[in-house]
Amino acid sequence: MNNPYLLEHLRSIPDFPIKGINFRDVTTLFKDAKCLKIMTNELYDLYKDKWITKIVGIESRWFVVASTLAYQLWAWIVLARKPWKLPAKTISETYEKEYWTDSIEIHEDAINEDDIVLLHDDLLATWGTMKAVENLVKKFHPKKIYINFLIEITDEGLHWRDIFWDSELTTLIKI
Amino acid sequence: MNNPYLLEHLRSIPDFPIKGINFRDVTTLFKDAKCLKIMTNELYDLYKDKWITKIVGIESRWFVVASTLAYQLWAWIVLARKPWKLPAKTISETYEKEYWTDSIEIHEDAINEDDIVLLHDDLLATWGTMKAVENLVKKFHPKKIYINFLIEITDEGLHWRDIFWDSELTTLIKI
Repeated sequence: MNNPYLLEHLRSIPDFPIKGINFRDVTTLFKDAKCLKIMTNELYDLYKDKWITKIVGIESRWFVVASTLAYQLWAWIVLARKPWKLPAKTISETYEKEYWTDSIEIHEDAINEDDIVLLHDDLLATWGTMKAVENLVKKFHPKKIYINFLIEITDEGLHWRDIFWDSELTTLIKI
Repeated sequence: MNNPYLLEHLRSIPDFPIKGINFRDVTTLFKDAKCLKIMTNELYDLYKDKWITKIVGIESRWFVVASTLAYQLWAWIVLARKPWKLPAKTISETYEKEYWTDSIEIHEDAINEDDIVLLHDDLLATWGTMKAVENLVKKFHPKKIYINFLIEITDEGLHWRDIFWDSELTTLIKI
């Protein structure tokens, strides 16, 4: 199931951003043309018959694969960004982080009720931002929401399907 | 020269981020599958025979087109980011902004002396970040550096070729 070429190119950075965290550095997946092809093509295979009209990239690393996939699927790209980054009128969602609250925004004319939307982020271990984006996208009342994470950390004792229970969820790599 | 379809989809936001600035909102170019195709294909035509090996996307809107172009050119993507965003060891460059200094970083193993590098950003009116990225990329001593801006604002009385005098410069849209 896991693509060995992708696994091999995923880098772990011990103790980043703080001691005790083994950070999965996905930038090494962009530093290789074949990795980008594989990620894009595997996602294309998953979603090519879903009639996706909009792909939401989450600030900011995941603009990369959202973009290559949008190019292949003839979909539009919607940027979900931190406050004050988007110039036109936005809709926003506030969410709790470990020690503070954060917000994420989308342009208010970016999604409509006819859209089938795919949300894409890297790591299904830090799901707070994605949950906020899902809540935010629901405010636009699209026809359907799909969610994809590149990597799923499976040994955390968490039931992801319980968190994202009403959107269809896929992951490319399980660790 | 200017692609009319792109021009038509470029949105202007008056008085953003401050009064008196007519901000060019490029997110509307991502919100249309055909715009993304056109931008990517026009850049592909410009660079397909240049043997580009790395494309540097500048945080963070421009990760989008850097990514679709990298996909087409079989090039690697290098992310130029604000401090503390990249997890592995970086090289950085500090530069002056209007009222403060800022820094931009690239992973220290992201570029090497065999590379032919394309730097890509949106607007050749705010060139400070690009000049810093150019200086930063020069520290890696690549074979050659190309620079592309999507939009060139031509009525500012500035001589861009004097600022980017030793890299080959192109723009897709002139306003």
